[in-house]
Amino acid sequence: MSSSINGIIFDVYGTLFDVHSVKTRCEEFFPGKGESVSLVWRRKQLEYAFIRQLMGTYKSFHHVTRDALRYAVKEHNEKVSAEQEDSLMEQYLFLDPFPEVKDVLDQVSHKKLAVLSNGSYDLLNPLIKGSGLSHVFHSIISIDEVKHYKPAPSAYGHGAHMLELRREEILFVSSNGWDIAGAKNFGYQTAWINRLNLPVEELDLPPDKEFRDLSGILVWK
Amino acid sequence: MSSSINGIIFDVYGTLFDVHSVKTRCEEFFPGKGESVSLVWRRKQLEYAFIRQLMGTYKSFHHVTRDALRYAVKEHNEKVSAEQEDSLMEQYLFLDPFPEVKDVLDQVSHKKLAVLSNGSYDLLNPLIKGSGLSHVFHSIISIDEVKHYKPAPSAYGHGAHMLELRREEILFVSSNGWDIAGAKNFGYQTAWINRLNLPVEELDLPPDKEFRDLSGILVWK
Repeated sequence: MSSSINGIIFDVYGTLFDVHSVKTRCEEFFPGKGESVSLVWRRKQLEYAFIRQLMGTYKSFHHVTRDALRYAVKEHNEKVSAEQEDSLMEQYLFLDPFPEVKDVLDQVSHKKLAVLSNGSYDLLNPLIKGSGLSHVFHSIISIDEVKHYKPAPSAYGHGAHMLELRREEILFVSSNGWDIAGAKNFGYQTAWINRLNLPVEELDLPPDKEFRDLSGILVWK
Repeated sequence: MSSSINGIIFDVYGTLFDVHSVKTRCEEFFPGKGESVSLVWRRKQLEYAFIRQLMGTYKSFHHVTRDALRYAVKEHNEKVSAEQEDSLMEQYLFLDPFPEVKDVLDQVSHKKLAVLSNGSYDLLNPLIKGSGLSHVFHSIISIDEVKHYKPAPSAYGHGAHMLELRREEILFVSSNGWDIAGAKNFGYQTAWINRLNLPVEELDLPPDKEFRDLSGILVWK
């Protein structure tokens, strides 16, 4: 693995930001089922993004996130009012960064930093701006600009294009195993933030480095 | 919905054949965890197929099924010998058809019938031949011939091509909601066999008809 890293691109949900608060709000609305609803919601959110990409019927992450919520609620034989649905969707705008994130980003801020997310700008911009982290980023990048969800190669290609760097001088950082596989498949160097102590995905594209939280990437500081 | 159905294409796993025996064998090898292992196995099997399609790194369903099994076993902090792994994989070759399947297929056998599966021929052929159902089918079709997994439109297109029928005169039958969405997106008429009483997938492509088991399609007999 080369050490000439000139840019670092971060995934957003689960990597920089903790989606735990979504579960908490689900539990408020669906007592005793909050964890299950939020798990199905997250699973369907990704599944719908992938399936739409495969079918050629792209919709924004905002759209598929709402659709996934509706499915998750129905699967649990629950109902939500329009107001509750909006309240649940809004959770994605006010997530907390993981505790180490701000300090780590500051220490690597001499490199070109970006986020590259499947999230659309209506979700991403309020979240990043509200977090007080936006000043460290050269670019906030949504795949909505190219309408190809990660792990499609063109989604990662858009990141390299926006940073004006070659793929091999970019470190891609994500907590999602499939995202790391997609990034490595495209040609980025990769660091997997394995917060949940999961096995490596069996996709023949293991991460170059694996860390338990974001502070691991300080080896490139 | 037009009534001019001249061909019927069936999905295989979960639609014609019950994958329950896979769970039973998992429980033998991983007591107390069989259901969970088999659930993760099935989820990862589809996820890996979809992710590889998105990344452009296609491998056969046999390959991704074995990879998914390895992931599921590791996620449960278990180990399998090569022999146990082969034994688990072999379950896919000896699944039982659901009880109503043979009778229903016989009653619609004056139409051109086919199966169209993400499964590769090394999985499909032994299963269909061993089931005693092969005589009713005009074609046994694997997407491995085009190397595009359902729900990609080209996968469904291969089915229409092999049956030499127009898409709108074909009824596509599946128990998988995403498969029904993909088939309808391509232009087939669709019948969802909703064996598990699940909500319709929120993909803006609801099934034309929904039945609790395969006998529902006898309205086209």
